[in-house]
Amino acid sequence: MFLVKIFIKRRRSILDPQGKAVEHRINSLGYKNVSSVRIDKYIELELNENDFTKAKNNVEKICNDLLANPHLEDYSFELTKK
Amino acid sequence: MFLVKIFIKRRRSILDPQGKAVEHRINSLGYKNVSSVRIDKYIELELNENDFTKAKNNVEKICNDLLANPHLEDYSFELTKK
Repeated sequence: MFLVKIFIKRRRSILDPQGKAVEHRINSLGYKNVSSVRIDKYIELELNENDFTKAKNNVEKICNDLLANPHLEDYSFELTKK
Repeated sequence: MFLVKIFIKRRRSILDPQGKAVEHRINSLGYKNVSSVRIDKYIELELNENDFTKAKNNVEKICNDLLANPHLEDYSFELTKK
């Protein structure tokens, strides 16, 4: 069994309107020293597989097929044996 | 200047309908070995502050005041000197 931690990040070259809106709000609350706010997805899941390579391949396929939009987003992940 | 990485996680005792929907979809794609999917927020920002303690206090206030819902979510963060 692996605990899988996945980061799905919009490419930094692509505008993040939600991050921009939150940045404006943070600044308007008085924190003028905050910039470059980006809001991304963090996904945790459990994978019932004992072989590391199989687990890694499974997660890559799941990210490519379902979790990440290949035109806009990049993904990275960590596997921790449970 | 600090790079701040913030995790905003719904408490594990509270249902995550989006995570559940994605889990069903992953299972229906043939990955029956995936469970406990949770989808949370990952936020990056830059904080123009040189003092570690002040930076930490700023981020805690921003999380409490704006980023996290204290009834549903917990947050954690890492500061990296840039």
